[in-house]
Amino acid sequence: MSEIKHILVTNDDGVSAPGLLALAQEMRKIANVIILAPDRNWSGSGHVKTLDRPLRIKEVTLSDGTTALTSDGAPSDCVALALLGYFDEKIDLVVSGINPIANLGHDVTYSGTVTAAMEAIIWEVPGLAFSLGTNDNHPQPLDYSSAAIIARQVVEKTALHKLQSGMLLNINIPYLPLEQIKGTRITRQGLRVYRDRLDRRVDPRGREYFWFGGDAPTGTPEEGTDVGAVAAGYVSITPLQLDLTMYSAIPTLGDWGWDNPQISSK
Amino acid sequence: MSEIKHILVTNDDGVSAPGLLALAQEMRKIANVIILAPDRNWSGSGHVKTLDRPLRIKEVTLSDGTTALTSDGAPSDCVALALLGYFDEKIDLVVSGINPIANLGHDVTYSGTVTAAMEAIIWEVPGLAFSLGTNDNHPQPLDYSSAAIIARQVVEKTALHKLQSGMLLNINIPYLPLEQIKGTRITRQGLRVYRDRLDRRVDPRGREYFWFGGDAPTGTPEEGTDVGAVAAGYVSITPLQLDLTMYSAIPTLGDWGWDNPQISSK
Repeated sequence: MSEIKHILVTNDDGVSAPGLLALAQEMRKIANVIILAPDRNWSGSGHVKTLDRPLRIKEVTLSDGTTALTSDGAPSDCVALALLGYFDEKIDLVVSGINPIANLGHDVTYSGTVTAAMEAIIWEVPGLAFSLGTNDNHPQPLDYSSAAIIARQVVEKTALHKLQSGMLLNINIPYLPLEQIKGTRITRQGLRVYRDRLDRRVDPRGREYFWFGGDAPTGTPEEGTDVGAVAAGYVSITPLQLDLTMYSAIPTLGDWGWDNPQISSK
Repeated sequence: MSEIKHILVTNDDGVSAPGLLALAQEMRKIANVIILAPDRNWSGSGHVKTLDRPLRIKEVTLSDGTTALTSDGAPSDCVALALLGYFDEKIDLVVSGINPIANLGHDVTYSGTVTAAMEAIIWEVPGLAFSLGTNDNHPQPLDYSSAAIIARQVVEKTALHKLQSGMLLNINIPYLPLEQIKGTRITRQGLRVYRDRLDRRVDPRGREYFWFGGDAPTGTPEEGTDVGAVAAGYVSITPLQLDLTMYSAIPTLGDWGWDNPQISSK
């Protein structure tokens, strides 16, 4: 573990979320922990770089009496603040979470938890995103203790092996007692099935407004995928990259005859 | 062109941006155009799904006298509002832009322009993102006329060939007079080089605040990449997908011995 001295802990639910505290407490067993997390919930916020306003950082006390820093930026802003030099310490690893809801399939580009880890690899620091494998209908409060222990074990493994440059890990942990988790699967991104509906309402002044409503997303629990692994009771570890190129489509698109476009102003 | 009857035009710079108007005007030559764009600038906003507040939609008049709709949501929210049923018309294609600054390499997950097209393919509608191949030091105002004509030609080509499911196109157009554009290249995502620095300031009340500053990003103009194509004077068309799995890493990670994790609470 000699290479991981300082771990930055962040999340997308805000600094006071219980999932962040559980994660930070386990990380403290293996490294120095620095917390810089948003001052509010940024779920579904995507990969943000705040350029149109300045950001503030302030100190808060968490419920276990420890100190954390919070900013009015998004999760990815918190990571950029930390990695661009807010701290004197060199950050060796960024961990994000533990998110109370699974980040599976297409969730990854929306997810503040995952995009925090994306921001880490932009600045060439390994990034790990942790989520419970639950959906948003799960009864509260959630118990993060098993997931936090697994998060620590994943970090220890990562420290031993070193992540390759440009790769982040998206980790979803079944919401089960530790002894009921069957093991770990290295997975590919599966298929998320969104079931949003547009909920049209009228305010007391007669004006329309709109909620994204509908049921929580489901997924296709295929063998080899994140969705499948969590559904079967395994920890899912998906290696992700920021190269979104659909390589298989390049030859096909090339055959469309783009090289001699008929360029005219009509 | 019979398949593309209704085109949704959106952007991340806000409904009054000249790039949107130029794009909408060219699209009107080939289809019915519906505009639903944010009421403010959302550059660098990422892939957003606004769930914590309702969204409003209102009508505005653009500078050419035509009518557009605007919402207080992000670009991807505008797309979701449209595709989840705000309009009676069936939207056949979503086009986003024209962004005044290039969206190359790692920009794609940050970019409101590109994430609008991502949202389209989530709902199984083809999505195209258009950007000028400039950086943010370019003198204003910009002339979008060449780029808009090329955007129309790309849409016409797309209508002929049909995009495969799950694929969006990220199109960057060199900022050159039409006759100086050399042609079109189908590219992979290249390497963006960010040069952000943390700019620490003190407000009139003695409290610190932080800007992300530094120079505009550059890129490595490799052959075959988006960065390389635009630098060489070609329109860059990059097919993108929402599967971020780093497939090449799955076997390596599997060899780390995850299958029998030592699960203990200590």
